[in-house]
This record gives sequence, C-alpha cells and structure tokens, in this order.
Amino acid sequence: MNRRIVLAARPHGEPRESDFRLEEAEIPAPGDGEVLLRILYLSLDPYMRGRMNAGPSYAAPVELNAVMEGATVSEVLASKAPSLAPGDVVLSYTGWQEYAAAPAHMVRKLDPSAAPVTTALGVLGMPGMTAYTGLLNIGRPKPGETVVVAAAAGAVGSAVGQIARIKGCRAVGIAGGPEKCGYVRNELEFEVCIDHRSPTFARELKAACPCGIDIYFENVGGAVLRAVVPLLNNFARVPLCGLVAQYNLSALPPGPDWTPVLMTAALTKRLTIRGFIVSDFEAQRGEFYREASAWFREGRIKYREDVVDGLENAVAAFQGLLLGRNFGKLLVRLGR
Amino acid sequence: MNRRIVLAARPHGEPRESDFRLEEAEIPAPGDGEVLLRILYLSLDPYMRGRMNAGPSYAAPVELNAVMEGATVSEVLASKAPSLAPGDVVLSYTGWQEYAAAPAHMVRKLDPSAAPVTTALGVLGMPGMTAYTGLLNIGRPKPGETVVVAAAAGAVGSAVGQIARIKGCRAVGIAGGPEKCGYVRNELEFEVCIDHRSPTFARELKAACPCGIDIYFENVGGAVLRAVVPLLNNFARVPLCGLVAQYNLSALPPGPDWTPVLMTAALTKRLTIRGFIVSDFEAQRGEFYREASAWFREGRIKYREDVVDGLENAVAAFQGLLLGRNFGKLLVRLGR
Repeated sequence: MNRRIVLAARPHGEPRESDFRLEEAEIPAPGDGEVLLRILYLSLDPYMRGRMNAGPSYAAPVELNAVMEGATVSEVLASKAPSLAPGDVVLSYTGWQEYAAAPAHMVRKLDPSAAPVTTALGVLGMPGMTAYTGLLNIGRPKPGETVVVAAAAGAVGSAVGQIARIKGCRAVGIAGGPEKCGYVRNELEFEVCIDHRSPTFARELKAACPCGIDIYFENVGGAVLRAVVPLLNNFARVPLCGLVAQYNLSALPPGPDWTPVLMTAALTKRLTIRGFIVSDFEAQRGEFYREASAWFREGRIKYREDVVDGLENAVAAFQGLLLGRNFGKLLVRLGR
Repeated sequence: MNRRIVLAARPHGEPRESDFRLEEAEIPAPGDGEVLLRILYLSLDPYMRGRMNAGPSYAAPVELNAVMEGATVSEVLASKAPSLAPGDVVLSYTGWQEYAAAPAHMVRKLDPSAAPVTTALGVLGMPGMTAYTGLLNIGRPKPGETVVVAAAAGAVGSAVGQIARIKGCRAVGIAGGPEKCGYVRNELEFEVCIDHRSPTFARELKAACPCGIDIYFENVGGAVLRAVVPLLNNFARVPLCGLVAQYNLSALPPGPDWTPVLMTAALTKRLTIRGFIVSDFEAQRGEFYREASAWFREGRIKYREDVVDGLENAVAAFQGLLLGRNFGKLLVRLGR
C-alpha cells in the first residue's frame, strides 16, 4: 500500500496536526510514458505554507483532501517510458507520499556519482537556485559589499552567504541559537553570524555591519527586517524570496503601523525591494547548475541536511521548519 | 532691503507659522564671478518638508536660522561674470528670499522665447524630470499597460500621466476633489481620475483599473498606497519619489502593522519597489530636456500653475501644499 499525507483543512495560523491526514491508498500503476516511483526523500520548504491557504498567490493552492505538494527524490521501480529504467534515481514532484506514478518528462534523472542525490533538493536544486538567481540578478553583489541573510544555516540562506563570499562580499548571517551561529561562522565561513534570539540582536547586527548593508536577502520579514532597515546603505538592494516569520500570521500584528518607516527608507535611501520566485529565472537554470556544481566540487559551497525518518513525522517536521527548529536543509527520508 | 524666510524651528508634525521667520537683511553685493539676482518666482515643492527635519536623509537639513532652500527663477540685476548680463533670466537655487548673490556657474540662463520661464521650475524642470526619469527608468512602461499616479493635478503627477499616455499606456489619476479630477480628465486627458476623498475611493479605483495596475508611480503613501497594493499586477513596478501623505507624521500611525500586507504583495506578485531622487538620473538631463521640450511644443504635455503673490504668503502656501490645497505647480511670485 501507498501512504500519503493530504491537506485536511486550511490552517489558521500555525498548521496543526489536524490540518493533515495520513491516508493509505493503492500503489498506482504507471500508464504509457510514465514511471512508478518509490520516494526516497521528500523536501520540506517554507513556501509550502503558502500553498495551504486559499486565495490567489503565485501558485494555485493545494486542494482540500489532495496530496500535499512537494519535490522529492525517487527511485524508478517500473518504467513505461524509454528514457528511464528501474533503478534510476530521479528528481520528481510527487508530493508527500511514498509511491507515485509520474510522466517521464516530469522527472529529471540524477547522476548519483556527480553529487549526493539529495543535493537536487537543496544546494543544487530549488533552494540553491533561489539563492543564486536572487543574489546575482537582484542583489548584484560587488566585491567588498556587505550582504546580510537570515535563516543563514538553512538551505537558501547558507547558499546566499557562500555565493556572496565567492563574489568577494562580506557575508553576515543571522540564525537562531549559538549552535547554528557557530556552524555558519566556522563551517560556512561567514564573516559573522548573529543570533536573532539575543536580547541585543539589533545592536549586535549593527556592530557586525560597520559599513552598513548593501544587500539584504530577505527570507524572513518581521523583527529581522525592522533591525535591518536602519542599517541599509543608499542604493541597497533587497531581493525578497520569503517571509517565514509571517507565514503563520492569522491577523495583522498590532500597531503601530511600521509601513511609513519602510517606505521612507526606500525613498530616502533609494532602495530596490524586489520580490521573486525562482521560476522567474528559469532561463538561468543551466548556468546555475554548471556554476553551483563547480563550486560544490571545489568545496566552496557546503551544506548541511536535517533528515527526519518516516512520512508519519513529516507534519511535525514541517511545523518545526516554520519555527526555525530545523538545522540545515530539511528532508524526510521515506521507506526505510 | 532684502526679505527672506528662515527656518526658526524644526516642525513637529505640520509646519506652523512659528517654525519660520520673515527677516530683513541687506541686499548682498555680488563678488567676482557672481551675479546679483532679483527673484521672480520661488518654487514650493513637497521635498522641502524633509529638509526641515534634523537627521540623516539624502540631503543635509536646512540649518536653523538659515534661509529655507528652494529653486527660483530670477532676473540678473548686476553681473560680475562674463557669461551673464543684467536682464538675463536664470534658473537659480537661492531659497526663500527676494534677492541673492550667486556664482554664475550655479545658475542656468533661460530662453524666455522657448517656453515660459516658470516651466524651468515645473514641467521642464525638476518635477518634470522626476516624472520622466522615474516613469521611464523604473516604471518601464509598455503600450497598453495601466499607470496609476496620485497628486495627478500636481507638478509631478500631471507629467507622469501625460508621459504614460505618450508611451501608449492607460493613465489613471488620483486627485483631491471634483475640480481637480475634472481637469485631469478633460485637460490632461487621463483615462480616468478618481477622487481620493470619496468614501468609495478604493472601489472606484478598482473599477478604474479592470486589468489591474502595472505601474504605480508613488508620491503620496498612506491610504492611497493601501488601496493600490491589492490591484497591482504580477511584476508591477513602483517608482517611489515622494510620500507627501506621511511627511507631517509626528509619530507612527496606530496599528495594525500593515507591513506584512505590503511585503506579501511584493513577494507573491514579484513587485519592484524602488525609491529614487531625480539627481540619481542626472546623466539623463539633456535627453529629458530635449524630449520634454518637444512634447511641450507639440502640445502633448500641458501644465497648470498655482501662483501665490508675495514672500509673506510662502509659508501658508507651503502648508497648503502638504495638505493638497494647491491646484497645479505651486509658485510664489515675488517683487510685484
């Protein structure tokens, strides 16, 4: 039997266990041109919170009682497509389940000898490409500039800072807790990493950016944004790919209304604030993959994975992701 | 004797009469390389409110007891510079006073036969160039797109909408009151103009933009911004050159904090919000002047002036400017 997690209800605020349902179903039979997949790893990413809401966004919401969406790495069990054979490992978009049938053209065959296959869900996949395209196209880093990124131990943030360093910038990370901050400084070799839980966070961030901030890669919002804005330099760039600190808001925060501070800074400092989704830069996929693969082989980009075992633990892992409990790229390993 | 207005105190909220002082002083004698100017017209512009505040911004504040800054059109009374002769009319930056001495290289000789000299303070000057550079460089209008601008009867807004039309866009104006809205529609030939004082303003704006908004030229902030954001299309551009609705804020508005709405829209719609000051595009001054002059001669760009007589009325006129009481480019005519 196949096991899968469906969206049972639209979360109000933080997703609850009862917003999901673990179901059993027949293992599907692949049709012509399809492959039967056994899912090895499910990627959990903050954007999934947005898919749980009704209403318009850049992608359609997951329907109620439908399998939660998500990228996966899978093994081909059976193939009715000439391009793939049993035993092949592929990048797939099967969602939160253990088995799936998928059209062969909707998966991409991975080369396990080139890099660990899970990198297709992380540093050499969507999170890595988000970091690469946002930083280079919108951030336009120049040597010597200061680049600040939050969730710096996470999949996107860790790549942002390391690419910033490759481009000759000073990388300043923000992360939650001393363990993550130590990793960002010592393993990822950011210049500094500030703990956003510190009571003196804003002051420490200011001290860490003596020449101000030229690029703030925004993936959290909230209190971090409020601490960053006063430090932004004239003509600073703010690539915006996520707002994890506010995904669980069920109502607007209490006042005062901070919008005038943000807009005044944008005006007087001539900021560029630009939202993006990685697919906006789809044309750069080949370039990203070539460059990032080379950096990875040369040891210039490192990554860390936080692997949880078992589909039954996916919901709790996702809840933790929104609260910053993961330490590295969050994956669920299935079928052990 | 010369009369001049100095900044007597830094305004807290709306500028008050007592924040300024009308003084008399000797008419200065021009030094070598200087001209003595009799000021004909003083330009009053919203940016001046920012100069009255202490603290860092894109330009230094006016010092207490110093003459208020501002661009002027003046007549040369005496010249100790070979390039200028008595009777010449020049664009100058003498501030709020009736006479001034200025280095000849700091003024620009105007040709009264080419266009009325006051256009150097309006449609062919800083406000016109603000509209031109912000709309073209940041807005990047494409034919058929919808461009929304507030303060549409004012110096910048009226130029934004007319240039948008020249570029093949649908221009939607926002202005205060039926008289201004009628002028924007009938004289400036915007497609629509919505009265922001209407109790159904947000609904009317939505109805005026059936295909959404591609460019919002932001010069007001506040309630207009809140009505615009839900209507912005994917990949919309927001050139930001002013926030007149919030210049007089003495504290942040009460809650809730609307920032998450703005940031979520910026993310999911992939907006570009970019602040600018006209001087950021100084290199385009020649191009602007050639193009705008041609449009003006061809009758494709119109303008309206709101002329107040007498330096003693400058403060009240400036107070009214921040409240939207002017109707067209606000000028103070001196020395009649």
